[in-house]
Amino acid sequence: MNYSAQQIALLINGKLEGNPETTISSFGKIEEAKTGQLSFLANPKYEEYLYTTGASIILINDSLELKQKLTTTIIRVPDAYSAFAVLLTKYQETVVDQINGIQDPVFIAKTVKLGKNTFIGAFSYISDGVQIDDGAKIFPNTFIGTNVKIGNNSILHAGVRIYNDCVIGSNVIIHSGAIIGSDGFGFAPQTDGSFKKIPQLGNVIIEDDVEIGSNSTIDRATMGSTIIKKGAKLDNLIQVAHNVEIGSNTVIAAQAGISGSTKIGASVMIGGQAGIVGHLHIGDATRIAAQSGVSKSTKPKTTVTGSPAFDYVAALRSQALIRNLPELEKRIKELELMVKQLLQEKV
Amino acid sequence: MNYSAQQIALLINGKLEGNPETTISSFGKIEEAKTGQLSFLANPKYEEYLYTTGASIILINDSLELKQKLTTTIIRVPDAYSAFAVLLTKYQETVVDQINGIQDPVFIAKTVKLGKNTFIGAFSYISDGVQIDDGAKIFPNTFIGTNVKIGNNSILHAGVRIYNDCVIGSNVIIHSGAIIGSDGFGFAPQTDGSFKKIPQLGNVIIEDDVEIGSNSTIDRATMGSTIIKKGAKLDNLIQVAHNVEIGSNTVIAAQAGISGSTKIGASVMIGGQAGIVGHLHIGDATRIAAQSGVSKSTKPKTTVTGSPAFDYVAALRSQALIRNLPELEKRIKELELMVKQLLQEKV
Amino acid sequence: MNYSAQQIALLINGKLEGNPETTISSFGKIEEAKTGQLSFLANPKYEEYLYTTGASIILINDSLELKQKLTTTIIRVPDAYSAFAVLLTKYQETVVDQINGIQDPVFIAKTVKLGKNTFIGAFSYISDGVQIDDGAKIFPNTFIGTNVKIGNNSILHAGVRIYNDCVIGSNVIIHSGAIIGSDGFGFAPQTDGSFKKIPQLGNVIIEDDVEIGSNSTIDRATMGSTIIKKGAKLDNLIQVAHNVEIGSNTVIAAQAGISGSTKIGASVMIGGQAGIVGHLHIGDATRIAAQSGVSKSTKPKTTVTGSPAFDYVAALRSQALIRNLPELEKRIKELELMVKQLLQEKV
Repeated sequence: MNYSAQQIALLINGKLEGNPETTISSFGKIEEAKTGQLSFLANPKYEEYLYTTGASIILINDSLELKQKLTTTIIRVPDAYSAFAVLLTKYQETVVDQINGIQDPVFIAKTVKLGKNTFIGAFSYISDGVQIDDGAKIFPNTFIGTNVKIGNNSILHAGVRIYNDCVIGSNVIIHSGAIIGSDGFGFAPQTDGSFKKIPQLGNVIIEDDVEIGSNSTIDRATMGSTIIKKGAKLDNLIQVAHNVEIGSNTVIAAQAGISGSTKIGASVMIGGQAGIVGHLHIGDATRIAAQSGVSKSTKPKTTVTGSPAFDYVAALRSQALIRNLPELEKRIKELELMVKQLLQEKV
Repeated sequence: MNYSAQQIALLINGKLEGNPETTISSFGKIEEAKTGQLSFLANPKYEEYLYTTGASIILINDSLELKQKLTTTIIRVPDAYSAFAVLLTKYQETVVDQINGIQDPVFIAKTVKLGKNTFIGAFSYISDGVQIDDGAKIFPNTFIGTNVKIGNNSILHAGVRIYNDCVIGSNVIIHSGAIIGSDGFGFAPQTDGSFKKIPQLGNVIIEDDVEIGSNSTIDRATMGSTIIKKGAKLDNLIQVAHNVEIGSNTVIAAQAGISGSTKIGASVMIGGQAGIVGHLHIGDATRIAAQSGVSKSTKPKTTVTGSPAFDYVAALRSQALIRNLPELEKRIKELELMVKQLLQEKV
Repeated sequence: MNYSAQQIALLINGKLEGNPETTISSFGKIEEAKTGQLSFLANPKYEEYLYTTGASIILINDSLELKQKLTTTIIRVPDAYSAFAVLLTKYQETVVDQINGIQDPVFIAKTVKLGKNTFIGAFSYISDGVQIDDGAKIFPNTFIGTNVKIGNNSILHAGVRIYNDCVIGSNVIIHSGAIIGSDGFGFAPQTDGSFKKIPQLGNVIIEDDVEIGSNSTIDRATMGSTIIKKGAKLDNLIQVAHNVEIGSNTVIAAQAGISGSTKIGASVMIGGQAGIVGHLHIGDATRIAAQSGVSKSTKPKTTVTGSPAFDYVAALRSQALIRNLPELEKRIKELELMVKQLLQEKV
């Protein structure tokens, strides 16, 4: 698809300087862009590239004063980076919107309800009782278990697996290899040392606007629901155990893990490889540093770090002191020598 | 499927109070259950719900004295939670048992041996020489390499991948996305700084009653076998490297990782995100806390924590002191001042 | 396939002792090998097995003096282990080379370009514009997005997913469940607390001779490329975020994670479960211990450990002192008592 500078200026309400008929078909970083690409300048550090870039169209901030004349077509907007992101998003939506229909072969059970403008990629398996709403896109090699619901415009990338009875909201994106609704890890110890599986009969509910990264795993509740609330964003390789709740707009970085029944508030930020033990309450807007091991509930707006995790500022001070432990030990040794001397002299 | 209170009382050998013809078709938590659901009361904390629940049938302990009359049908048993788990298990077994046959399309090589009452879901790939025993269920989009054996009643969920020559026992459950038998991570350094792959020609043996979580990875041995022994339970996103052995009834929480050639004893418990270096022996009934980094072999029945991991009690004491390091440093400073003063006064 | 002792001796340029017509069809460890298997003796610790092994052919070092006469056929080489690895590699290459053709059903878009001697396993999905070069093997249930390029002799195991526009070099091995090119984790915070997805329009470039482990995830760049350079080896369940670069011959153990835009040099070694924060430069030949949390850039050839990671030797010293913290505190207490006494006596 080609877009003219005029079309783009209209779309983002920008001021066009240069040839309105310049066209682009893709996007690039200002330092790498080529003819036919649109780029942007937001960070003043990159201003030199404005005069050397191969890009055909560049978005710049209204406030920018040019140091020399440009032959490249430019579009001025209040915030070049935001405008660029808006364009990218619109572009991707257009691309995705055009993907539709049912490819061959697929396995679609008789009782499946398919909305309008949906896509079912080849080798996908859609079980009995599944409902897929308008505009949802199911990429190839995907498995959807019985009675699953997929909301409007949600995207399941290739190889996603959703076990039975899970509910996926609207505008959800689930990346390849993510597993939604596998059994929670629950076993009853037996007197002979073996473990008996506790059936996991709940489900997973993923609310609107959630994104789940590649190969993340979200287990179904034992009973009731594991819930990922509206607007939460989960990165790759994250583990969410049974009966966990993750609050609205909470962001979790890759490889973090949340143990069973823990309730995480809204707008929490969890760093990569952090772990949270079970049955905790993590207050709204808590920040948990990468690799932390959280073993106690947190109050809203606290920041914690370390394993076991505690208050961030205190932890940083302790970490600095850990690095100074050899020095600290030396000071103790010197004190011991001096005190010994004092005691001897006294005698 | 519908079950009457009478059928259920017979099944779990309970005493029925109320209408024997009440029927249920699913299960629910006492605080959430609706008409047509069976629930249970085990934790006295939830007793209030006994009188308000929407459940049609409730399992309660023999010993419970009712505070008011119930219209709901109840079934008394010695241990309501255990009886509930038994019912859930029987229910799930019945559901799974009814899934059988070969869906279309599948890829099944000519030399495959299929037992009775097996299920092969659509888009599954069963290679030459594979043997699938009675009652085993292979869900859709699954890959089974050449000469793999799958024991009686084992379940491979959608999208499991098993490389060639691996052996899966009976009553094994493998969740979606788990990879069994991929190459161990072995490379010989070359003089030019590059690495040459060491072929990994062994296999993985998974014994009876093992459960493997979603997206876990278990690598094949270089030669010989990586072995997961009878009754071990592995959670999601776990890494088991080549030539590892995991003992009987050992339980491993999500995102833990075990490096090459380490032998783990029986009835060991390993916390989430723990890591164990290669070539160790972890004694029977060792407990390894979450996020530990185990770098030394352990004796049976020890408990370790921390990274690097050491004795649990000592580690907790050290962790408390780490948090008190600023205080400790303050005390050293005060001592230094006092000693300095004493020394000066002496002069 | 059967190979005679004579064929093998020729292949590895070894000196044959015994029956040149002895044949083998597989490989085994000297302590477990059976008739029809080839084994080797490299480690003197295993020499006793030389006289009891069931192997039909054994590779031994030129320098080895036999303690008793052998009936087994032996082949002498300068380095038995290297010769064995060479044989295994040749064997596996032969096996893989014989796998070719297009199975049924597959989904191959019209514009796909397929080289000679390629293999496309059943239920694989090859999108428009894909180019698969000579000798590449695509195992079943694999997804390859639009415009992806796969170089000569590369192997994609069952269930690999490659998003659009990624470039895979020659002789690359990608294990089952690995996801290449899923969206980087980038969101712009909005004034209402929600997050807006930043489209990820770059790609992933994987250069020649790279190996990627099972269920690892490598995200595409926001713009530009996430790059894994020639000869790098990545284990299972590794997270590589958007715009990361990993240098040539760098080796990364399982479950490690690398945050966005970090550049890792050549010949770096990263231990299991280590984490590296974003926007760092990790110098060539840096060694990062397992479970480290690297928060600062490193100079070439440094070794770091701990979370937060710092110099290895200093960190080990601090770790030892952490274990001695209770002892350290005791010494401070004693000092306090003595100094108190000295001060009192003074009065």
